Amino acid sequence: MDTLSRLESTIRQRLSASPETSYVAQLHSRGLPVIARKLGEEAVEAVTAALSGSTEELTSEAADVLFHLLVLLAEKDIALADVLAELDRREGTSGLDEKAARSA
Amino acid sequence: MDTLSRLESTIRQRLSASPETSYVAQLHSRGLPVIARKLGEEAVEAVTAALSGSTEELTSEAADVLFHLLVLLAEKDIALADVLAELDRREGTSGLDEKAARSA
Amino acid sequence: MDTLSRLESTIRQRLSASPETSYVAQLHSRGLPVIARKLGEEAVEAVTAALSGSTEELTSEAADVLFHLLVLLAEKDIALADVLAELDRREGTSGLDEKAARSA
Amino acid sequence: MDTLSRLESTIRQRLSASPETSYVAQLHSRGLPVIARKLGEEAVEAVTAALSGSTEELTSEAADVLFHLLVLLAEKDIALADVLAELDRREGTSGLDEKAARSA
Repeated sequence: MDTLSRLESTIRQRLSASPETSYVAQLHSRGLPVIARKLGEEAVEAVTAALSGSTEELTSEAADVLFHLLVLLAEKDIALADVLAELDRREGTSGLDEKAARSA
Repeated sequence: MDTLSRLESTIRQRLSASPETSYVAQLHSRGLPVIARKLGEEAVEAVTAALSGSTEELTSEAADVLFHLLVLLAEKDIALADVLAELDRREGTSGLDEKAARSA
Repeated sequence: MDTLSRLESTIRQRLSASPETSYVAQLHSRGLPVIARKLGEEAVEAVTAALSGSTEELTSEAADVLFHLLVLLAEKDIALADVLAELDRREGTSGLDEKAARSA
Repeated sequence: MDTLSRLESTIRQRLSASPETSYVAQLHSRGLPVIARKLGEEAVEAVTAALSGSTEELTSEAADVLFHLLVLLAEKDIALADVLAELDRREGTSGLDEKAARSA
């Protein structure tokens, strides 16, 4: 199983763990607005790292964005597979990119 | 090859395509600040969809976040594999989650 | 009356205007999540302008942030005076800045 | 002098103060990307407070947005008066709002 699917599975297990031993459970106990806010804040950090930081910083911030996006999806009970299916669907049909996608 | 790796590959090819036929090439021609800004804006849309939107809306916004994160990484020539390796590394060593990760 | 108070007053009047003649009324008709999202997006644009843009661009984006913050406050029926009172209150009492504030 | 102009003046004085006694000086010593990032993060917090928080929370987050916007403008040596002049200018000339502005 690949990294994101495995991480998604781990996050879903931890949502119901004890907040004392799991960061994911801590976020869950603080509620959806805090989880959503964290995604927004990590994205802002990725933006500033992209414009002013090192490759290492952007790599780390991108990991933070992915992690907190997975936590948000798990909290809302949305499967990562559904998001990936949406990306697959777009690649096949989006107007501007359609030809490029087919010739890729 | 999985969806994100295939999409990463497609995006990297399109960076140098004609802006007239590719959205990715359009973003590339507008420059890094615009690409970074797009990631931030899509994350804000995901935040509001999580708090006020439907499951379909959040799924769509999450796809937008992933797509523009991949464009930003490609623009900065950072491999998705490096970001995933960072996530793998954390899962094995992060303090609070270490035990949960190992027993998962 | 100063610029922000006058603008607050104008925005409050326009909330109930026709969406066909007023941008503020358009935002109001689209609802709170759209107004909140606009504030977030304008802030992201200010962040990127600060790191990559000209003085003119940051000045313009800062104006956009102030404008959409006033629309959000008006939509939630919060007076700008209450926000300014909060800033006054902090300046008098915040720990780290207290001495500097008093000697200013 | 009104609250924001007075706060702008205080912030400009503190930029060169000791980071040990002033939060503004701390931000200044950490540099522009951190200051820009803080504005983005506070805006995200205002967005989530608007959609999920109390009136008191949004009032407090709006104050945080204004404070960090003033720090960013001071760091970039942009006068608040220039931003307010931009808002005045728009109110007089923007297409959609022009008539409403004049009859206000």
